[in-house]
Amino acid sequence: MEDLIQTNYALDTFYFLLMGVLVMFMACGFSMLEAGMIRAKNTSEILTKNVALYSISCIMYLLIGYNIMYMDAPGGGIFPSFGFLIGEENTAEQILNGTAGGVATDHSERSDYFFQVVFVATAMSIVSGAVAERMKLWAFLGFAVIMTGIIYPVQGMWTWGGGWLSEFGYSDFAGSGIVHLCGAAAALAGVLLLGPRSGKYGPGGEVHAIPGCNMPLATLGMFVLWFGWFGFNGGSELKISNVDEANAVAQVFVNTNIAACGGLVAALLLARVWFGKADLTMALNGALAGLVAITAEPLAGSPFLSMIIGAVGGLIVVCSIVLLDKLKIDDPVGAISVHGTCGIWGVIAVAFHGDASIGAQIVGILGIFGWVFIASLVIWYALKATVGIRVSEEEEFSGVDISETGIEAYPEFQQAA
Amino acid sequence: MEDLIQTNYALDTFYFLLMGVLVMFMACGFSMLEAGMIRAKNTSEILTKNVALYSISCIMYLLIGYNIMYMDAPGGGIFPSFGFLIGEENTAEQILNGTAGGVATDHSERSDYFFQVVFVATAMSIVSGAVAERMKLWAFLGFAVIMTGIIYPVQGMWTWGGGWLSEFGYSDFAGSGIVHLCGAAAALAGVLLLGPRSGKYGPGGEVHAIPGCNMPLATLGMFVLWFGWFGFNGGSELKISNVDEANAVAQVFVNTNIAACGGLVAALLLARVWFGKADLTMALNGALAGLVAITAEPLAGSPFLSMIIGAVGGLIVVCSIVLLDKLKIDDPVGAISVHGTCGIWGVIAVAFHGDASIGAQIVGILGIFGWVFIASLVIWYALKATVGIRVSEEEEFSGVDISETGIEAYPEFQQAA
Amino acid sequence: MEDLIQTNYALDTFYFLLMGVLVMFMACGFSMLEAGMIRAKNTSEILTKNVALYSISCIMYLLIGYNIMYMDAPGGGIFPSFGFLIGEENTAEQILNGTAGGVATDHSERSDYFFQVVFVATAMSIVSGAVAERMKLWAFLGFAVIMTGIIYPVQGMWTWGGGWLSEFGYSDFAGSGIVHLCGAAAALAGVLLLGPRSGKYGPGGEVHAIPGCNMPLATLGMFVLWFGWFGFNGGSELKISNVDEANAVAQVFVNTNIAACGGLVAALLLARVWFGKADLTMALNGALAGLVAITAEPLAGSPFLSMIIGAVGGLIVVCSIVLLDKLKIDDPVGAISVHGTCGIWGVIAVAFHGDASIGAQIVGILGIFGWVFIASLVIWYALKATVGIRVSEEEEFSGVDISETGIEAYPEFQQAA
Repeated sequence: MEDLIQTNYALDTFYFLLMGVLVMFMACGFSMLEAGMIRAKNTSEILTKNVALYSISCIMYLLIGYNIMYMDAPGGGIFPSFGFLIGEENTAEQILNGTAGGVATDHSERSDYFFQVVFVATAMSIVSGAVAERMKLWAFLGFAVIMTGIIYPVQGMWTWGGGWLSEFGYSDFAGSGIVHLCGAAAALAGVLLLGPRSGKYGPGGEVHAIPGCNMPLATLGMFVLWFGWFGFNGGSELKISNVDEANAVAQVFVNTNIAACGGLVAALLLARVWFGKADLTMALNGALAGLVAITAEPLAGSPFLSMIIGAVGGLIVVCSIVLLDKLKIDDPVGAISVHGTCGIWGVIAVAFHGDASIGAQIVGILGIFGWVFIASLVIWYALKATVGIRVSEEEEFSGVDISETGIEAYPEFQQAA
Repeated sequence: MEDLIQTNYALDTFYFLLMGVLVMFMACGFSMLEAGMIRAKNTSEILTKNVALYSISCIMYLLIGYNIMYMDAPGGGIFPSFGFLIGEENTAEQILNGTAGGVATDHSERSDYFFQVVFVATAMSIVSGAVAERMKLWAFLGFAVIMTGIIYPVQGMWTWGGGWLSEFGYSDFAGSGIVHLCGAAAALAGVLLLGPRSGKYGPGGEVHAIPGCNMPLATLGMFVLWFGWFGFNGGSELKISNVDEANAVAQVFVNTNIAACGGLVAALLLARVWFGKADLTMALNGALAGLVAITAEPLAGSPFLSMIIGAVGGLIVVCSIVLLDKLKIDDPVGAISVHGTCGIWGVIAVAFHGDASIGAQIVGILGIFGWVFIASLVIWYALKATVGIRVSEEEEFSGVDISETGIEAYPEFQQAA
Repeated sequence: MEDLIQTNYALDTFYFLLMGVLVMFMACGFSMLEAGMIRAKNTSEILTKNVALYSISCIMYLLIGYNIMYMDAPGGGIFPSFGFLIGEENTAEQILNGTAGGVATDHSERSDYFFQVVFVATAMSIVSGAVAERMKLWAFLGFAVIMTGIIYPVQGMWTWGGGWLSEFGYSDFAGSGIVHLCGAAAALAGVLLLGPRSGKYGPGGEVHAIPGCNMPLATLGMFVLWFGWFGFNGGSELKISNVDEANAVAQVFVNTNIAACGGLVAALLLARVWFGKADLTMALNGALAGLVAITAEPLAGSPFLSMIIGAVGGLIVVCSIVLLDKLKIDDPVGAISVHGTCGIWGVIAVAFHGDASIGAQIVGILGIFGWVFIASLVIWYALKATVGIRVSEEEEFSGVDISETGIEAYPEFQQAA
């Protein structure tokens, strides 16, 4: 029996680590999606932002974020706890004689940190897409430090760390609100202060499409995100080592997958009817919208219901992208629509399962959005007032690759005028 | 003891889910492979087909396909059963007191659906490559609905659902016939009705090579497929939770890997000798040919024998590609050769292990090919007679990206005349 | 109890296989990284080298390498043992009654081979980048046969096969020396005999930058390598099925990740200060440098210390790249700096943990480097004296894609003069 406890501990730890690795790979997915959806001249810079933001997220969450979010974790509790060691692991002896402490006794503490940290990077990745092609690299990275070290962990603590939102009954399985809406709220604040890319909106209010330069790359990014989302949602069950938990994880996998399918097909059909073409970028965003929508509750519903929730997400994202353009909110990759608008939809959809009251869910949305948006606005504003957040007109025209990274993304390929 | 049953159930479920996730990623591999092997002007369209066919596969298999293929599954049996819930899971109590039902009691039913559904998408992905650069998008997606909802599941039931082929002694471990030959047969029917790309074959019978536009993308696709194939074959052992099963899964991993290696090296050497160059596309197809060839029996043979079976696949695929071009069967990515010709070789090779009679294997090939080819021909023909399956000459000349998706894949890069 | 032994055996085997699959995917990462870092005209050729070297590695290690490295493995011991079957697996009965033999009784022998073989391919992948854009394809593949069949396994046996280096106290958890320095030493020998690319160094000693042609591809490669490194280091704990082992694997995951983060940020900051730009390629190499540096000891240190070790790696790699250019050692992708210089740093850093004496570590470095460098030099020299190792000036000017593979990588895209 004691030995079986050890085996289950190992299985659950292994499960956490593998789900975390899948989520880690989402950083690659976001990078490719964004690099494919923007123009060639700004590609090296957005790649630099993406690789750097992942690293900054992991470092800041290690140094202070994890301990803000999980105060009961060993080494946590006192802000800032500089939890260099993320506390100590429980030993086999402690586990077996019941003297184990910390946030978890049925899997490794460090596997918990590992799984959590890749979520922070996901939230931050959402921001980079929305502010692409015109934001200064170092201002962005400065924002990433605050966002991943403080802004995200504070609201994460409210629900997942046992804070007031969880007590209020707010329910968010894997983070439609806590991760995706959070990222989108920070992005929206940045975009509002930053303004649209030059040439995006004409003087008469007309919208000029600025096509992405590399569709295979964008599609690759979408697939990698979908692949990684099995870890994102599947790992959020937090345990797999018995029949009921294993069934639950399997249910989450099936529902996550079919919600993405529903979102993709719905967006593709709507684009076909509305725009007359099978718009690939809408299909890609539709799949992501379905994934965001199901993330708040991928367990309770049937696969069929999950498909519908995803499909509604797919319809919403197309409308949201069109609407934001009407409002002159310029989001080159549609990140605010995918993660923000559909994140809200996902949080609300939980109430349909009866897992949470609609009121608690709305409070959650307002709480998360309010905190993240306002805190982000303050930070973005401070950056704007000091180092500046927008590149010069000339740099924007020439592309930020040269001015920021000194490296063209595709130096040998002739580009059309 | 009861608890250990639960742990094993969880381990086997986890194994199913992870193997399934690897197979799911093969959808990305096919997309990249195909996008790299065709011309730039048709890239957005083939990406759209690939993301949509994956989604359609999952939806159709959820709605009807799974229950056609596995009639004993809960909710299955009556066609069409519209298995929105794929039946109910067995609870821990049912598992432990022996009252569990359904297709499996040692792992989650839903994990079984998840593993199976990604195979359907694989079969359908094979089709998209062969009909690339000239087939109408929506006709293709219409075919995908029938193929993944009915044509594939019917023949899948014959073997894996306990139907007549399994009773006949036909043996096909992970589906050289049931998945790969099936996809290739549907593709061949489509290609025959569709005809070759304009300009591919000259009036004097000469073959004009139409090089793929993006070799790194094609190579990426091959690697992703190889990566995913560990799930495809490795998961088809269906169980891992004891010594003998674990040894079997390890054997499958080793044999799958080395068969791909054999196929790649053999195709590379043959291309070098025959064409005078180390043809990269032949090497890529050689690896895939080795993988398809070993898929029917990756367990029984030694690694050395598996390498030989893969190497023979690599030789066959080069010859098959050359032969199909002589027959004016235009397959832009070599899918019919890789999955069809080498699928047949793989099914026959099982007989060399003594796991099945050569007669049963040939009956299996004829049964699967006959059903899928004829049923597909009927559907393709019906589509051709109604909505049409081929784009106009002008659309083909300009590229189907603009006409079908409205989105160029590489809008900023100047293309050579 | 007996059944639990089986479950643990299965869990550890599954862990080995999955970690191995992640490492296998690193072959894709190296391919993409190298294809992105070189010029378009040499891309198909480097892709061909990469897919072929992976296959050759697996075949040669199956035929002779594994049995050189692990003489106690069943079928091993007599050189060359031509271990076609890699010996026989232990059965459940042998495991349970204690009569099991071979290198491991707590997981499948074949899973051990599978995990080891992907390391060989990693070492060989390091070479292809350094000799890119001017080495003959078939000479390179000939070297790969010797390297993966003999040179690598011999020095691998010294430590991991229980040879003199392990007895000497040399400590190298996952192979900063045994894999990475080994690959770099072979690469350095090749580069010295091969000479720099024409035009790289001016007559006055000036260094001409030759930018890589595809930054998204290089970034993709880096992410895939990072993703795969969790298997590389995480699997090198060799066991996960109890509390202490699971904690150890989790620690390795966390430390591996944060070392890469440290390396990336350090390299990015140093490049910003030194060159005035946020050089993306330095950031990518910084992450890889951090990964190489932590590979020799990802378990003993705290996450904070691991971050520092990675960060030092990130600083070292930038300096090393600049220094090698001063020495006119032309390494198009920085492989010698990433894997060689930082591999040495990683091996030495083990001594800081107190896990090994600095003396033993230096002996390990000298032993590995000495053997691999000299043996490689002999082989490269023999190849140079017979078939030649460098393409003609004309082929180098036109690009080796046409002359070696007959296939352009990007045939439709106009390339700038």
